[in-house]
Amino acid sequence: MKNIKVGIIGMGRIGKIHLENISTRIDGVEVVTVINPSEAGQKFASNYGVKTISSDVEVLFDDSETDAILICSPSDTHADYAIRAAESGKAIFCEKPIDMSLQRAKEVVEKVKEKDVPMMVAFNRRFDPDFTKVKIAVSADNIGQIKSLHIISRDPGPPSIDYIKQSGGLFKDMTIHDLDMARFIMGCEVAEIYATGSCMVDSAIGEVGDIDTATLVLKFENGATATIENSRKAVYGYDQRLEVFGSKGMLQINNPLMSNVTTSDDYGSHADVNLNFFIDRYATSYLIEMQEFVNALLHKNPMPVGGEDGVKAIILADAAYTSLRENRPIKVQ
Amino acid sequence: MKNIKVGIIGMGRIGKIHLENISTRIDGVEVVTVINPSEAGQKFASNYGVKTISSDVEVLFDDSETDAILICSPSDTHADYAIRAAESGKAIFCEKPIDMSLQRAKEVVEKVKEKDVPMMVAFNRRFDPDFTKVKIAVSADNIGQIKSLHIISRDPGPPSIDYIKQSGGLFKDMTIHDLDMARFIMGCEVAEIYATGSCMVDSAIGEVGDIDTATLVLKFENGATATIENSRKAVYGYDQRLEVFGSKGMLQINNPLMSNVTTSDDYGSHADVNLNFFIDRYATSYLIEMQEFVNALLHKNPMPVGGEDGVKAIILADAAYTSLRENRPIKVQ
Amino acid sequence: MKNIKVGIIGMGRIGKIHLENISTRIDGVEVVTVINPSEAGQKFASNYGVKTISSDVEVLFDDSETDAILICSPSDTHADYAIRAAESGKAIFCEKPIDMSLQRAKEVVEKVKEKDVPMMVAFNRRFDPDFTKVKIAVSADNIGQIKSLHIISRDPGPPSIDYIKQSGGLFKDMTIHDLDMARFIMGCEVAEIYATGSCMVDSAIGEVGDIDTATLVLKFENGATATIENSRKAVYGYDQRLEVFGSKGMLQINNPLMSNVTTSDDYGSHADVNLNFFIDRYATSYLIEMQEFVNALLHKNPMPVGGEDGVKAIILADAAYTSLRENRPIKVQ
Amino acid sequence: MKNIKVGIIGMGRIGKIHLENISTRIDGVEVVTVINPSEAGQKFASNYGVKTISSDVEVLFDDSETDAILICSPSDTHADYAIRAAESGKAIFCEKPIDMSLQRAKEVVEKVKEKDVPMMVAFNRRFDPDFTKVKIAVSADNIGQIKSLHIISRDPGPPSIDYIKQSGGLFKDMTIHDLDMARFIMGCEVAEIYATGSCMVDSAIGEVGDIDTATLVLKFENGATATIENSRKAVYGYDQRLEVFGSKGMLQINNPLMSNVTTSDDYGSHADVNLNFFIDRYATSYLIEMQEFVNALLHKNPMPVGGEDGVKAIILADAAYTSLRENRPIKVQ
Repeated sequence: MKNIKVGIIGMGRIGKIHLENISTRIDGVEVVTVINPSEAGQKFASNYGVKTISSDVEVLFDDSETDAILICSPSDTHADYAIRAAESGKAIFCEKPIDMSLQRAKEVVEKVKEKDVPMMVAFNRRFDPDFTKVKIAVSADNIGQIKSLHIISRDPGPPSIDYIKQSGGLFKDMTIHDLDMARFIMGCEVAEIYATGSCMVDSAIGEVGDIDTATLVLKFENGATATIENSRKAVYGYDQRLEVFGSKGMLQINNPLMSNVTTSDDYGSHADVNLNFFIDRYATSYLIEMQEFVNALLHKNPMPVGGEDGVKAIILADAAYTSLRENRPIKVQ
Repeated sequence: MKNIKVGIIGMGRIGKIHLENISTRIDGVEVVTVINPSEAGQKFASNYGVKTISSDVEVLFDDSETDAILICSPSDTHADYAIRAAESGKAIFCEKPIDMSLQRAKEVVEKVKEKDVPMMVAFNRRFDPDFTKVKIAVSADNIGQIKSLHIISRDPGPPSIDYIKQSGGLFKDMTIHDLDMARFIMGCEVAEIYATGSCMVDSAIGEVGDIDTATLVLKFENGATATIENSRKAVYGYDQRLEVFGSKGMLQINNPLMSNVTTSDDYGSHADVNLNFFIDRYATSYLIEMQEFVNALLHKNPMPVGGEDGVKAIILADAAYTSLRENRPIKVQ
Repeated sequence: MKNIKVGIIGMGRIGKIHLENISTRIDGVEVVTVINPSEAGQKFASNYGVKTISSDVEVLFDDSETDAILICSPSDTHADYAIRAAESGKAIFCEKPIDMSLQRAKEVVEKVKEKDVPMMVAFNRRFDPDFTKVKIAVSADNIGQIKSLHIISRDPGPPSIDYIKQSGGLFKDMTIHDLDMARFIMGCEVAEIYATGSCMVDSAIGEVGDIDTATLVLKFENGATATIENSRKAVYGYDQRLEVFGSKGMLQINNPLMSNVTTSDDYGSHADVNLNFFIDRYATSYLIEMQEFVNALLHKNPMPVGGEDGVKAIILADAAYTSLRENRPIKVQ
Repeated sequence: MKNIKVGIIGMGRIGKIHLENISTRIDGVEVVTVINPSEAGQKFASNYGVKTISSDVEVLFDDSETDAILICSPSDTHADYAIRAAESGKAIFCEKPIDMSLQRAKEVVEKVKEKDVPMMVAFNRRFDPDFTKVKIAVSADNIGQIKSLHIISRDPGPPSIDYIKQSGGLFKDMTIHDLDMARFIMGCEVAEIYATGSCMVDSAIGEVGDIDTATLVLKFENGATATIENSRKAVYGYDQRLEVFGSKGMLQINNPLMSNVTTSDDYGSHADVNLNFFIDRYATSYLIEMQEFVNALLHKNPMPVGGEDGVKAIILADAAYTSLRENRPIKVQ
């Protein structure tokens, strides 16, 4: 089988991960082009033997050999590049969110449908082995009818205020992962959303109009309820847990730890801290999501996470903002 | 010091526990009277050498030697007996709820204030060593400013439909403990409450107008949020957990298990089931709450849980019902 | 059924536990006599309404109404009292060890056999619910053929040097429980024993000729091996664990903790200390062993732990001393 | 800095791991030659762009550009290749054991000393992050004076009888890792060893003269004791735990699990199985040991595990065999 030829736009943190995974651990695919304006990004790419390295994105859309484009550039460029990619007939792997604006995200999905190109939105947590295991157990009816879902998602610390300003706000930057996860685990759509939130971590976040602490309640079409707890800062480290409660049992995901070493002393017994950095915590998920993208392309299977999923997460985040503003539960259509 | 002399009204499950604890494990107190209509209840009492055993409650209010009355009779008699006890100048230990009706509960508290008798409402979970430990840690600022609280409270199975019919409904029968616990841990009052709920365990519960599954969000005056998850049935047993998240750390209460034995086989490692019966799970709490009641009487200290706490829990349960009915967050005044 | 009438010799720590358990929690039995020289002991007994309280042990052996005698006096008096009890035809409950001397212990067991009185040796740990659960699982073949057993038994701190001097030494005072436990779990006899040990906790212990740290290897007749780790001091508290490994799985007993509260901070997550005092850790075992003793008497069943078990534990402790002295494995006959 | 140029002898399971790690994850090093007789091994090597691939080991020793040789061939060839490598002046990375025969292993170490080439013996477990963390904590005196060490090391299942026949037996094939680990953690030498063992897993193993189940006691020069429990088969999977007990606390290594998902049902709560394959369990250790080897070469530092360590492990395994045969503790000189 011929290798899938891939171009990557953006060589930041996430672009580098995809380049490294593709180059060293995934069969059937190669990165032929990297588009990145910075010298450092270009140097990184050249270490992996990428043939074409350029600061001009045009060379990518024009390249007839390229099968797929990974959009790893800043969020506000995703939609434009995705539309260009669709128009040039290339498969799309797009980091989340498709766009801050629901309207623009829908345009992308429509263009993708019109041009009939495959598109995957990178909700990487779905591919984390723990979350996948829970999804499979729920789908296999291991715990019966789902009654409630609880997601705890806390960062070790807030990003810079500059990042926050352009992030789309807590719900679109951070909660969006949990909104997608809730849909993924539950296997059905959200009917109503109620959101509360405030600024309790750093007043500077409030000054730029954002919140850093939130609790959301989602009512699903199947009658089940999900709660999401978010915080921009947990001193004990990156906290990503999930608990699903059903008529036949309960599934829980605990945090992976830095080590399996426990120390006992006269104060008790002490376990290690959580894996603290999202790139460590979700390292495997980045590898598997790319394998799944490549596999879907190779075997012409449907994408595991489609553009529609990206749009639905934005709809939920928008509804959460409305709920927060109006202090009432909001129907999701 | 002279022994406190106590009369107990009701010799059901909870009356028996108090009689046994007082008789065998608490100093400075004795049960001199038990009021119970049933022969079985009277027999149980006689085994502990109780002097006066009668089916006529009047003998108790008239007895000048009695210092305190424990009201362990059916819920709809609590208010009447409490008012009679106050009028006869006796200290009151009242099982929850004071009454189903907020109005009537307030009347009890007013009467108690008017007659200046001590009154304790039996929110026993506050005296469970795990919950007490968390309360102390929170009060000592061990985890800093509280941002959120999550309470999971699930029964191993629903009570009979007959019980449900007269229970006051999920929020007044079951959630009321969690509402009190949230106030206790948080150390401040609830400003707003949002409640969802449905009948997912047994349709017979829905047919008598009750729910068996609920999720509540409480906003506190200090800006923190609490979520409560309730279910009338968890197949894996009695589930009573709590998690408080603050600026300096997190405290978690896990379920005590039937044993400390773990079995490993080719499916993994298997820990034992939870302590399954509330009387086992909370055995220590019943002992300590009675010790605290007796201590407060002996040393003329304020009661650890007052009539006001009983009233506030009813106010919250009522607000939760309003929220459920009107599908909107309700301000609590 | 008529109550079993019991006399207790000794009102120290363990005598008090038995008196309290019998008086408040066990049916079918009453303590009619307590023999104790001290005023404090006599006062404690009188609080439980014991009829005859005396410093003269003779009144007990002469009392025709007494069915059973609990020997809770200092270790060097056990054998004498047990022989006297047997001669006066009374059932015997004897704290461990029967005697420091194997010869004398055997004489006790022979006298008991000759007089045909029931005798139970108080290896209380067998009645702890965790150890019982493991014994039942092993007997039920849940983990198949046993290959190895590992017992960890560490005290929170050494007793006084005065106690150590008269204790019979580590193997007869502390290890003896583990030797009995190994026989109990394994369900067969020890064929060979290898013991190492040294004084690493407190040199004063070495100066009186004892050790405070030991490792033992026991080879059983069924081919399985047990290892025992002992220390007189673990700073993290009382440590009583066990692990059985078999062809079909593994069973582990972990330490019960002071609470089910876990704290997370930037150093990791912290669980509570172990239940630290043997009387707390084994509280339930003391109650159950007495219930079992009473039940065996009431229903004329065989004693759950017999004099032979007491003798066998002493044989193993003696062999361990020989092994330690001669630095070689010792056959046990 | 110029890249270290490496040749690998053997492209079996472990040779492949080293080739992959060097090629994709370690800087400053490249594999220039792979020696392997099989076509499959040669094909694997060619995928990583190795320049020289041959079935003739001579090309390697003659190649003046090669700095270091990784000996990943069958155990009975290690000594020969190591001596040839030393004679040709190349650094040596040698899989364990250096040789089955102590005499021959000593010859290797002498030759290495004579020729003054760096040599590392691949006790990979020392580089596992959990074991390293414990070593560091012990060295930092976190738990005070070490009193005892307990190592549990069980395989998920026995290898083939053909493998067993040429393996050198349980102590040289499997226990040798634990003997090295005990020395590593303890930081001093073994003074005496006592070993028991039998064939309890598969009688075919006994028929070829080997054992599959063993317990060892090691007395160290510092007075501490270590116990090792080995089994060729644990149905619950690969079991590699360690517990160090000291005057100031205890350190424990638990098994990493396949996932962080726990399931609760009416039988209790169920955690996942252990990482089951040694190559998964110790994946990180293989990477780090190679990084350390390369770093030591690049910076001309001493090797983290030397030939002497390889010899000492064989001395201990030999002493264990003597102890097993003669059923007595054996002094180690």
